[in-house]
Amino acid sequence: MSTIMRKMNVISRCEAIYRTRHFEEDFAGIYHSYILVICREPGMTQDWLARYLCVNKSSVTRHLTNLEKKGYIERRVCEEDKRELRVYPTQKMLDIRPEVVRITREWNALLQEGLTEEEIKFFNDIMERLTDKSREIIYGEKAANENNS
Amino acid sequence: MSTIMRKMNVISRCEAIYRTRHFEEDFAGIYHSYILVICREPGMTQDWLARYLCVNKSSVTRHLTNLEKKGYIERRVCEEDKRELRVYPTQKMLDIRPEVVRITREWNALLQEGLTEEEIKFFNDIMERLTDKSREIIYGEKAANENNS
Repeated sequence: MSTIMRKMNVISRCEAIYRTRHFEEDFAGIYHSYILVICREPGMTQDWLARYLCVNKSSVTRHLTNLEKKGYIERRVCEEDKRELRVYPTQKMLDIRPEVVRITREWNALLQEGLTEEEIKFFNDIMERLTDKSREIIYGEKAANENNS
Repeated sequence: MSTIMRKMNVISRCEAIYRTRHFEEDFAGIYHSYILVICREPGMTQDWLARYLCVNKSSVTRHLTNLEKKGYIERRVCEEDKRELRVYPTQKMLDIRPEVVRITREWNALLQEGLTEEEIKFFNDIMERLTDKSREIIYGEKAANENNS
């Protein structure tokens, strides 16, 4: 029997392959997550994004630099704290968002096809607890509110 | 309520942060999966690895080139089919494996701390079905045997 993480990683990577089949640009990795959150929460700081997505600060900087180079985001210095950068979607990112949402929903629907309503409910409940637990291990606190998508 | 995939991605990324806190070299991404499978199944082809890990062939080539450059693997032309490359772990990879296994087990144990035996069983059963379903969506077949870790 493979471990829970092995299964999660296989499912995540299959989702990534599914996305690359539907996009010309490569949104296989974590980039679709940035698109979804930056469009929904424009103007958040890099630090907030790192914490929200559970990514190291150095990785967030690298990912956002990539997105900026490709014209998907703009970063502006935060008025209240000049050391912080706030992240905004460009029109190019806003334009691609509906397709990212569609593909994400399509994958989620396909994935759950064989499950009953009751199984989905039970499964979601455990996933929610594991997500909280993961954040607790990494950030040392209960952070259920941050899990809403 | 966030989607199943959003939760899985958060958990996977928290695991990645956990790993980077324990390794000097960066095994945050998919590399720990290569270490586990290449040490367990030395001499498999690149194509087999791509399919086993659910990664595009071009990504597997990139990842393996990285691992080769850093001295973790050797690739040799397959005797039966000269177009294929077989992948073998070097001593450097074999040496790092126990630590990768330890960290992976540690994370899995921490993650499941709050679940009952019954919940783990039910959860594992659904995860197994979702893993099969993911492979079926991507590769168009039922491939339960490939999920063993």
